[in-house]
Amino acid sequence: MPVIPVNTPNAKYDVTIAANLLPTLNVRLKRLNSAKPFRPFVITSPGIWALWSKQFLASFKQSPTILFLPSGESHKRLSSVESLAQQLSNAGADRDSLLLAFGGGVIGDITGFLAAIYMRGIRYVQIPTTLLAQVDSSIGGKTGVNLAAGKNLIGSFYHPQAVFADTGVLATLPPAELRAGLQESIKAGIIYDAKLFRYMEQNAEAILNTKKKADPKALTHVVAASVRVKANVVGKDEKESGLRMILNFGHTIGHAIEAATNYRQLLHGEAVAWGSIAALSVAIARNAISEKDANRIANLILRYGPLSPFKATAEKLVALTARDKKNRSGIRSFVLPTAIGKVEIVRNVTEPELLAATQSMLALMRRKSQ
Amino acid sequence: MPVIPVNTPNAKYDVTIAANLLPTLNVRLKRLNSAKPFRPFVITSPGIWALWSKQFLASFKQSPTILFLPSGESHKRLSSVESLAQQLSNAGADRDSLLLAFGGGVIGDITGFLAAIYMRGIRYVQIPTTLLAQVDSSIGGKTGVNLAAGKNLIGSFYHPQAVFADTGVLATLPPAELRAGLQESIKAGIIYDAKLFRYMEQNAEAILNTKKKADPKALTHVVAASVRVKANVVGKDEKESGLRMILNFGHTIGHAIEAATNYRQLLHGEAVAWGSIAALSVAIARNAISEKDANRIANLILRYGPLSPFKATAEKLVALTARDKKNRSGIRSFVLPTAIGKVEIVRNVTEPELLAATQSMLALMRRKSQ
Repeated sequence: MPVIPVNTPNAKYDVTIAANLLPTLNVRLKRLNSAKPFRPFVITSPGIWALWSKQFLASFKQSPTILFLPSGESHKRLSSVESLAQQLSNAGADRDSLLLAFGGGVIGDITGFLAAIYMRGIRYVQIPTTLLAQVDSSIGGKTGVNLAAGKNLIGSFYHPQAVFADTGVLATLPPAELRAGLQESIKAGIIYDAKLFRYMEQNAEAILNTKKKADPKALTHVVAASVRVKANVVGKDEKESGLRMILNFGHTIGHAIEAATNYRQLLHGEAVAWGSIAALSVAIARNAISEKDANRIANLILRYGPLSPFKATAEKLVALTARDKKNRSGIRSFVLPTAIGKVEIVRNVTEPELLAATQSMLALMRRKSQ
Repeated sequence: MPVIPVNTPNAKYDVTIAANLLPTLNVRLKRLNSAKPFRPFVITSPGIWALWSKQFLASFKQSPTILFLPSGESHKRLSSVESLAQQLSNAGADRDSLLLAFGGGVIGDITGFLAAIYMRGIRYVQIPTTLLAQVDSSIGGKTGVNLAAGKNLIGSFYHPQAVFADTGVLATLPPAELRAGLQESIKAGIIYDAKLFRYMEQNAEAILNTKKKADPKALTHVVAASVRVKANVVGKDEKESGLRMILNFGHTIGHAIEAATNYRQLLHGEAVAWGSIAALSVAIARNAISEKDANRIANLILRYGPLSPFKATAEKLVALTARDKKNRSGIRSFVLPTAIGKVEIVRNVTEPELLAATQSMLALMRRKSQ
């Protein structure tokens, strides 16, 4: 059973990855908190709870209080945080309460933020149920919500006590979500892990489970390798002053796409995949990457598609990047791929360059969706 | 010019107290941030800005962007935070922005929280304009907002870069607010500083400025002594695991009074003053304090009145204390005065005791308002 440690100056915790973790949950929580009493509160979505509540509750003598948040990025707002906080307070939650985030990225980001600010900070644990959440958003302590003005503009760095990723839960994930999540694993390969990249090239069928036969081994391998990349990067740069920025590969244009489509039309992984193709175009135009590596990257991203198309002009998308959180005093940081497993952070990408790259990405999209 | 250092494991900054600080503000901000560029944004209330904008802006070549929040506890909610964050984003605020909290406790608490969560944390400076904010809320890094369920249930520990308390600004403070703020200084005396307590006994006229002649020296002395108490306590226990709880003297019933009156009828200092009298009653009933000290405490609190009366039953108030943030796993912490300058934290105050003490406080209120 892969157990991957996350070590930052502010937190030290494990990500445990296995196919049948849920039924042992309470035992693990008790071990984590043996020195301090806790009262558990679950934050989950009605859909996930309907499918997995039995396994989730198997190890609890008494059911924790369950609070529901509807699915979807549109609920990732301060109003949801306020409503959940009010429910926690009504249910008597105090500083000895422990929040359990049981769901996808939205549930994890909101629950982490709620834990960060409820009574100025209580404990929480991540139990991610989507591939995207298991390989990316549940690890590293970034929590938060969206503003109308942009994604994740409000939030905290606040680490969970532990992450329990049950890969068995992925069996009920819609295929499109699985593919979108795998785009984040591809990203991990592109930015940091050439071996993971090659594994995904060579084992696409087993990972994507195209023959309708479960191959939990291939998927667990990809999840564990992706988590290792994220844990490594976050351990070296917790607060995104340097290295951690590489995790934002594909996110400059990716976030703009999500904003342009009101966070509804595309899955996050799909938006990042299109954003990665745009970032790749910048690198190609600069001759920063070999043709061979560029082709391998584009091919792998498309291999794990199809990626949903969307409608937005390049001008609109580039304009939306001006609000990127990564900008400092108006200077844009951009993650440029230079080889498989290697990227560079540059601060001199101009608007015309970004525009040309975005246009080239949109042209590819039009070709693919004909 | 008193400069009082605050030293905690997570932050180190100065509280500067003087009568004419505003006109030198920008120079001080630049000195603080000489290594890092910043773009200032002011969060203030229309009332304060109308009175003091000229002095505030005197040292700025270019006016910072000004964002307004209406006065009053009813605006200390997540919806205000969201609106301000949206305005920041629209104005192009990024991670190099610096928020300046220019106002009373509500402005300070909201701005600090906004700084804590905007883009997961940006810099801010406190420029408190009420006595309460100068001696208490601007120091120590507690930030946050209210829920319908209770005061400060949402928030962060997040320290400012500096606090600049211009005691000259107190000249335009309504007399009732000055008196309410002085209740927090009395609290500082009761819990930690017998000398400050005696100074306030012996110099009430000069401090309260009853002869309509300004005596900034007496007031500056009280502000500095109160800040020293808070800085000392916070330095020894940043996150309220032990000693810092003594700052909550009078707050158990005080918060309940504010909740029962919808945070509108009483000033915070008045509610805490009534709460202090209730806490004193618990101590008297337990024989935990001498009659002489108890009388001195009650007399000093009333000397800096009159305290506004309010309508609420003892039962209602005690019921409201059950939601106190200081409770852990249902156990109530209570700050008991045992002598001038000395308190004890106890965890065995029963509901009947609290009820009797609250009734005795309400009886005193009825006698006083006849």
